[in-house]
Amino acid sequence: MTSIVVTGDRPTGQLHLGHYVGSLTQRLALQNQHEMFILIADTQVLNNDITKSKEVKKHTLSLMRDYLSIGLKPENIHFVLQSRVPALFELTQYLSNLVSLSFVTRNPTIKSEHKLYNHDLNMGFLNYPISQTSDIVLFNGEIVPVGADQVPILEFSNDVIEKFHHSFNTHMFKKIQPLLSDTPRLCGLDGKNKMSKSLNNAIFLSDSSESLKKKIKSMYTDRNHLCINDPGQVEGNVVFSFLDVFMEDKLYLNELKEHYQRGGLGDSFLKNLLFDILNPLLLSFKENDFSDKELMEILYCGTQHANHVAENNMEKIRDIIFQ
Amino acid sequence: MTSIVVTGDRPTGQLHLGHYVGSLTQRLALQNQHEMFILIADTQVLNNDITKSKEVKKHTLSLMRDYLSIGLKPENIHFVLQSRVPALFELTQYLSNLVSLSFVTRNPTIKSEHKLYNHDLNMGFLNYPISQTSDIVLFNGEIVPVGADQVPILEFSNDVIEKFHHSFNTHMFKKIQPLLSDTPRLCGLDGKNKMSKSLNNAIFLSDSSESLKKKIKSMYTDRNHLCINDPGQVEGNVVFSFLDVFMEDKLYLNELKEHYQRGGLGDSFLKNLLFDILNPLLLSFKENDFSDKELMEILYCGTQHANHVAENNMEKIRDIIFQ
Repeated sequence: MTSIVVTGDRPTGQLHLGHYVGSLTQRLALQNQHEMFILIADTQVLNNDITKSKEVKKHTLSLMRDYLSIGLKPENIHFVLQSRVPALFELTQYLSNLVSLSFVTRNPTIKSEHKLYNHDLNMGFLNYPISQTSDIVLFNGEIVPVGADQVPILEFSNDVIEKFHHSFNTHMFKKIQPLLSDTPRLCGLDGKNKMSKSLNNAIFLSDSSESLKKKIKSMYTDRNHLCINDPGQVEGNVVFSFLDVFMEDKLYLNELKEHYQRGGLGDSFLKNLLFDILNPLLLSFKENDFSDKELMEILYCGTQHANHVAENNMEKIRDIIFQ
Repeated sequence: MTSIVVTGDRPTGQLHLGHYVGSLTQRLALQNQHEMFILIADTQVLNNDITKSKEVKKHTLSLMRDYLSIGLKPENIHFVLQSRVPALFELTQYLSNLVSLSFVTRNPTIKSEHKLYNHDLNMGFLNYPISQTSDIVLFNGEIVPVGADQVPILEFSNDVIEKFHHSFNTHMFKKIQPLLSDTPRLCGLDGKNKMSKSLNNAIFLSDSSESLKKKIKSMYTDRNHLCINDPGQVEGNVVFSFLDVFMEDKLYLNELKEHYQRGGLGDSFLKNLLFDILNPLLLSFKENDFSDKELMEILYCGTQHANHVAENNMEKIRDIIFQ
């Protein structure tokens, strides 16, 4: 039996190419070898601002559409709506008795996320690493794909697991292993920041060909490359950083880079080339067409299975706690 | 329709006469006029030490036995096992997003309880006033009998309710009213502290006549009252403080006090008198005899009804949050 993978997303909006190269392609590769739970974290998304809840339903649907459109298969993956697995809330409350405030607040990720969001230190936020521990262990998760910045949160989870094992003299849960992605982060159209919906610099998986063309056209290249024959710069050139990620023929890409650097290669040639690579990719996503009802049914089925696994584990946990 | 009363106890041991005069007689009076939920707080009891869980089952049973033996009626009261109402965990997690850490820690009761228990400030403890808010509102509670020291916790709950109403532009929950008991606190056999199991100075509702006799005999009276004819002191005399609470004929009691003060009245006369009052009371508790199975069935039924009410409310709350 292979290890179970648990991962997920907060329902905050459509997925973009940054997600695709960062986590989605990894999931596509994993889905054939591992049982996987993908959580739509609709309660975690409320941690910093509960009034965000009004958009959760819409974003949940768009996440499901994006997942299935890129080729994640409900035959391989349990898609789970976090808020509809009651045992998650229950376990979180029990685990919170094992965790001191100082233990939460000295975690580097919590510290930096707190600064990032610049919100009041609220109890929901402080509870989230505990809640995330439940998300993993209740589904027997062993492998969690994360960015390097999230590794301390998984260490936190392993510490909580150890506290539970120690307190109740048991070995119920498996140790969690972070799975780091080796793909570089995709920058946004502006080249200054990573791709992000809120920075308005993203290419969405659902973008039309027209929208894609427009966005590629707006990409930052080299502000000193005014005439075709001027020597151009490759570093910091957004078009090249995209080609680095999406172009398979690396030999030809290197030739193009040299040509661009010595002059004589125009930006529009490169942008057309990038369009010809990305457009079929985005079009392929549109081939998988699901109605809202179908998407919700798939999510309902996955959540039902998740409840079965979680409730089964929760029963064991209650027995361990209350004997 | 009268207001709903919500109250409860942590399952930490048998109930004693201190509980009887403090909260149980109040419940006996309330049960004929109000719908009432009595929660056995088996998750709250874990807040400061999760390993206490091993004794929860035993203490739950003894609480149920004590409740029914004094005459609380399952026809009037829903007895609820807190850990088996999943919606309580769920609402607590949502409400925690509305509460900042500083808002919790500046509450005077939290502050003083924290000092009292002298434990690490753990997340379970910090979450407990939020969890207690769920305990009340999910059962449509309006009246909560409390000691004066617990009033700030109810104020906290009302603040959380207000935050919820404000965030979602709703008026779903009723304002909570504390119901203060006018009975004085019963002191322990030693006369120095309030009656408490852990201080080993308690008369339990389940004590036998022999045990009662022994305990009354050990009661502190007046250490200078060596001979019957010596003048005796009424203040600080444990026997008199019990007679104050349990003796109905206050005129005769005043005569006894005057007699004792001028000398000529022996301690053993007073102790026998107290025994003759308390013994029939404790014996009357033994008339209601329930098997463990019956007790658990009553608790199961109450919890089932509680889940019905809570789940009904939780559905409305989910609709309000996620629309």
